[in-house]
Amino acid sequence: MSVRPTVGVDVGGTFAKLGLVDVRGRVLRSTRIPTEPRRGPADFARRVQARVRGWDFDTIGLGLAGGVDAAAGALLFAPNLPGWAGFSFKRAFRGRVVVENDANAAVWGAYAAALKRRPRTVVGVTLGTGVGGGLIVDGRLHRGRDGTAGEIGHQVVEPGGAPCHCGKRGCLEAYAGSYGLARLARRLMRRPPSPLTPEALAAAAVAGDPGAGRVWREAGERLGAGLAHLVLALNPDAVLILGGVARAGRLILDPVRRAWRAQPFQVPFARLALHAPAEREWGLVGAALLAREARKH
Amino acid sequence: MSVRPTVGVDVGGTFAKLGLVDVRGRVLRSTRIPTEPRRGPADFARRVQARVRGWDFDTIGLGLAGGVDAAAGALLFAPNLPGWAGFSFKRAFRGRVVVENDANAAVWGAYAAALKRRPRTVVGVTLGTGVGGGLIVDGRLHRGRDGTAGEIGHQVVEPGGAPCHCGKRGCLEAYAGSYGLARLARRLMRRPPSPLTPEALAAAAVAGDPGAGRVWREAGERLGAGLAHLVLALNPDAVLILGGVARAGRLILDPVRRAWRAQPFQVPFARLALHAPAEREWGLVGAALLAREARKH
Repeated sequence: MSVRPTVGVDVGGTFAKLGLVDVRGRVLRSTRIPTEPRRGPADFARRVQARVRGWDFDTIGLGLAGGVDAAAGALLFAPNLPGWAGFSFKRAFRGRVVVENDANAAVWGAYAAALKRRPRTVVGVTLGTGVGGGLIVDGRLHRGRDGTAGEIGHQVVEPGGAPCHCGKRGCLEAYAGSYGLARLARRLMRRPPSPLTPEALAAAAVAGDPGAGRVWREAGERLGAGLAHLVLALNPDAVLILGGVARAGRLILDPVRRAWRAQPFQVPFARLALHAPAEREWGLVGAALLAREARKH
Repeated sequence: MSVRPTVGVDVGGTFAKLGLVDVRGRVLRSTRIPTEPRRGPADFARRVQARVRGWDFDTIGLGLAGGVDAAAGALLFAPNLPGWAGFSFKRAFRGRVVVENDANAAVWGAYAAALKRRPRTVVGVTLGTGVGGGLIVDGRLHRGRDGTAGEIGHQVVEPGGAPCHCGKRGCLEAYAGSYGLARLARRLMRRPPSPLTPEALAAAAVAGDPGAGRVWREAGERLGAGLAHLVLALNPDAVLILGGVARAGRLILDPVRRAWRAQPFQVPFARLALHAPAEREWGLVGAALLAREARKH
């Protein structure tokens, strides 16, 4: 097995972050390029290769929003990257690439670098604009048949509840994603902050605004309820909370823990660890580390 | 690896079913003994051993309601078998035993014998008085940290909804378990059948009773919604529905499929198989086959 660094790329809708990552998940150098989705995947692949020319690396991991066909090194579907599905990154990078779902990559990055792969089974959730996730089962990333496993933000925690971007109502994302938080704030706060960001909502709650406190309690309770379903199903060793919204810390984690303590069947919750590691470029780190994993096989 | 048969024991609250099971999951002979939980686990182990004396078998698999410590061959907790937790079946059977959760055993039995282990990842649900389940991930039974994985009947599909035996409200079990069905029937049928069994409710629906039809539609929709959460999380190849309530066939399976078709994100549902194999002693078969698995390692 090579101990040379690998490159991780976290491909967002606007920018792609590139990093050279060592075997322990440390970022040795990093840069970014505009994604420019409309210029297409072949153009994007060329620009990534041009940017990392001269870096000493073994292989590249790409984290992309969508379902992935890991064997083919392609996206099966990509709602935010029209026209990118089906393109063979494997061919474009001459086999030196591994394609991963971006939420899976972020969860793997934090699992490997922050938790040192110690827990066997982990439910990971990413709290950003949307709510995504990833599952580690018995020390391995679980991708599922179509590479879509870990889609935990669209479980319905309140039938007929808040409208979700997916078209359903009452999804976890509609409460715990940043647009769900903003919606709660408009309903529960007398004077919602402007701009209505998770950071501003956290600051307002810390400053004692009772409406802001209620926003975080409701979001945290919904998140706790949704995660409880996965804890009952998977009986994991740990739950891992990532993403910008997780920076609210205890504001969101305390109600999660309260929701878990209220569960009548306590066995799978009793020894469950809850981790919210400090924000880092987990998507980039995870894409790089998963590329390393794939080279081992 | 031995190809001798193994013994499977499905330990219910009243009776324990014992069977001699071959490598393909066929039951070569079977019998049953009263469980008599109050006589304790040592007495039970002696009676099982006495009953299988003379059978030509390699090892015994016990399927028990509760959390299991597979390595210690003991129950971690057993709400329906007071005093049985902590008892070492491994010692009592001189190492020739494997202890499994009963719902996990049933799901494994149907997975191995009916699905021939073809799908890689399977969500299994057991619809009886209660609603339980088991998860197969990448061809292996996923037990989780405390052996409680697969507890899918207590996800809340309707906050504040129907009372559940667990103490919560709105659990999937409170709609799709047999007592949940009975409750729906008392609410939706003018003249509920007596006794109020799933069989009688299925007969009434087939005979054209509109209330009975609504009972199955509501139960099936709730089941479909709960299973959808697991399909989104795990992106499995198949869903496996077992247990007495599943004998209602299309009455419950059609609304499940309808609920899935209504999901906006269709990718994990598009190629998903839904299996409801004919009722057999899956618990006994699975306990025997898992005992065989364990001997391989």
